[in-house]
Amino acid sequence: MRINKLDEMYPAQDLLLQSGQLVQYGTGIYAYGNIPLLIKRKVESIIQEVLNKYGCIEVSLPTLQPDIIWKNSGRWDKYVDEGTMLTVTSDKGDFCLAPTGEEAVVEFAREKLKSYKHMPVTYYQIGEKYRNEIRTRGYLLRGKSFTMMDAYSFDEDEDGLIKAYDNIRKAYMEIFEKLGLKVIPVVADNGAMGGKKSEEFMMLSNIGEDTILYDEETGIGLNTEILEREDYKEYLKDEYGITDISKLQERRTIELGHIFQLGTRYSSMMNGSYINKDGASMPYYMGCYGIGVSRTVAAIYEASVIKYENEVKGIVLPKEVAPYKLQIIPKVENEEKLKEAEELYNKLIKQGINVIIDDRQNITMGAKMKDCKVLGTPFMAVLGDKVENGYVEFEDIKTGKKEVIKAEELIGRVKI
Amino acid sequence: MRINKLDEMYPAQDLLLQSGQLVQYGTGIYAYGNIPLLIKRKVESIIQEVLNKYGCIEVSLPTLQPDIIWKNSGRWDKYVDEGTMLTVTSDKGDFCLAPTGEEAVVEFAREKLKSYKHMPVTYYQIGEKYRNEIRTRGYLLRGKSFTMMDAYSFDEDEDGLIKAYDNIRKAYMEIFEKLGLKVIPVVADNGAMGGKKSEEFMMLSNIGEDTILYDEETGIGLNTEILEREDYKEYLKDEYGITDISKLQERRTIELGHIFQLGTRYSSMMNGSYINKDGASMPYYMGCYGIGVSRTVAAIYEASVIKYENEVKGIVLPKEVAPYKLQIIPKVENEEKLKEAEELYNKLIKQGINVIIDDRQNITMGAKMKDCKVLGTPFMAVLGDKVENGYVEFEDIKTGKKEVIKAEELIGRVKI
Repeated sequence: MRINKLDEMYPAQDLLLQSGQLVQYGTGIYAYGNIPLLIKRKVESIIQEVLNKYGCIEVSLPTLQPDIIWKNSGRWDKYVDEGTMLTVTSDKGDFCLAPTGEEAVVEFAREKLKSYKHMPVTYYQIGEKYRNEIRTRGYLLRGKSFTMMDAYSFDEDEDGLIKAYDNIRKAYMEIFEKLGLKVIPVVADNGAMGGKKSEEFMMLSNIGEDTILYDEETGIGLNTEILEREDYKEYLKDEYGITDISKLQERRTIELGHIFQLGTRYSSMMNGSYINKDGASMPYYMGCYGIGVSRTVAAIYEASVIKYENEVKGIVLPKEVAPYKLQIIPKVENEEKLKEAEELYNKLIKQGINVIIDDRQNITMGAKMKDCKVLGTPFMAVLGDKVENGYVEFEDIKTGKKEVIKAEELIGRVKI
Repeated sequence: MRINKLDEMYPAQDLLLQSGQLVQYGTGIYAYGNIPLLIKRKVESIIQEVLNKYGCIEVSLPTLQPDIIWKNSGRWDKYVDEGTMLTVTSDKGDFCLAPTGEEAVVEFAREKLKSYKHMPVTYYQIGEKYRNEIRTRGYLLRGKSFTMMDAYSFDEDEDGLIKAYDNIRKAYMEIFEKLGLKVIPVVADNGAMGGKKSEEFMMLSNIGEDTILYDEETGIGLNTEILEREDYKEYLKDEYGITDISKLQERRTIELGHIFQLGTRYSSMMNGSYINKDGASMPYYMGCYGIGVSRTVAAIYEASVIKYENEVKGIVLPKEVAPYKLQIIPKVENEEKLKEAEELYNKLIKQGINVIIDDRQNITMGAKMKDCKVLGTPFMAVLGDKVENGYVEFEDIKTGKKEVIKAEELIGRVKI
């Protein structure tokens, strides 16, 4: 029925599938259990927090979209012919499951941005997108259904667009920093979107499917296509101050974000216009900006795999997104141990430490320890029969080091 | 292109459409602007908070679902024949846009609930559902696309199911109370879902499309079909202690929630089973529980319309979901007024009052006052040219009463 086929290239997500925290329903279609959902929510809330701070306005555009808006932009036939869009045929007309939001946001803007007085503005949303992906890959890395943050800026002219673009660029750097991810902006081809300038936000990763040229010293990342230019040496020197080409390394990356200066391509086609200071009707200058939310969750997970001697032992998520700092696992059948664990839990909570206790009945200690590693929590304290009262078996999951310590020493250990 | 057809039966949502805070893309398909999205988020977070407190576990099931799981439950042909389900045909197979989640959650449970030790458990999710609705109605009240909370309980036997059902019933009462809504549980027909017992959660509303029998004194609500029983007098007395039938009034209602005891209908069809204490494979006993989230948002809005002498003046949302308590509107072109407003804003924030300041440039005072009413904020303080420094024009939007008061009196006025 369902193909829970494991792929050892993606050991973190393999663990999630094995523990039922990801469930596959078909190629590129997954359910989230509560743990990866928690991480996804954390990623979303960091994105929202930063974008709101940078003055962006959150909205929610429909996912099921009538064909007419795509016919107006000229992309319906193109995407249907390519077979890259999922479509719904009904007695009430044809629809698509939005693969992206330019058409819908122009329709939205037409209701809100009727005058130059209403701009500049950047709208964003976080929600599901759909693509009839011919090469789904790496579970949540490239699915048929995926969660995306897509933002769209509206300005009077190109100067405004450049300001909006630079504003979002800054916001992106802050988002990825807050997520604890090293992400490098790389000037990119504009591809299918049309428009002038675009940059991809690339995370260095051995499981990535893209390649960039990377200068470790400066942190500069470059599109490999740059080397196809005849004047690439002069270009690299003039644009990036790079003189020693041999220092550039080829590195594999995952694309987590992409930003575009679109200009008036969509607004012109779709009659997206405003009245300017002189009373004339003018098309919006637009930018569009995306972050792959489910892909970011997958990338964080895969970058957080803990191996000892090449064997996968678990996952330790970066502190920025880990839901908890410490998991306490008491032997619940032992009343004394359970009570001790609960007291410890309350004490740590009072100290402001984000701790969780696994006091489920009927589940073995071994199963709980396995679950703890999928939770991505960096530390574990086990109160089992093996240790005396007042002591815990403490494990730093990252190093795999286990030691029996006094319960009162726990705070010092996890407060690092 | 788009049909922004206003329907005066739903004045609150008319206001949202007029201000571009709801945008229609087709029959029953809408975008949310930032204000109704804020209210929707508030409703969702109250639902999450209460369900988590009642021990439910949040997950996220896919919306795009392969036909196979619906064929296993026997509902694919039925729903396709009826034309009530939206389907996607692709080169990789057929899919539907989930109208409900029983099939998907059984598939999920099969990965997680393999033993009696893993139960009882109730999973829930909040997300989009789709129906090829033949009678879309009242904007967000009944759309083709809508946001739903759907929960599913899994138990070993009927006793467990009844406990889970009663637990969710209690949670629902708490959710609607926290939302500031008077909602009455009414025993209902089980309809298309199969199973034993079910109750609808009905909000009294003149724009509702359902009718119940309501006893104002006791707060008891009854399905009108009860009167079709021959023994209805005895039945009402025995079941509800109601002797005076004439006191029962017919009242219009909106159905906001529905809970069902399903039993083993879906688990039997779909091989959803666990190993019991004796090592035998047994089907799950399931319950399913829904709350219409977007419908609840619409119902709250429509119940919050303020009219003076039959004319719609604005919206004042109940304090439980209103995003702000007070809106300050300064004349931004007047530097002194703007500074005064900002000081007032900071002072109120320090006092813990949830206040918002509309300091947008280029927007007229009139337009801001109109926006304020769509925001659902109960109080407004205007610092315009009309009032002396140190004074504000204060409006209680619910009563329509306007008066000039000292700025320092504001706290007392809004802290009620």
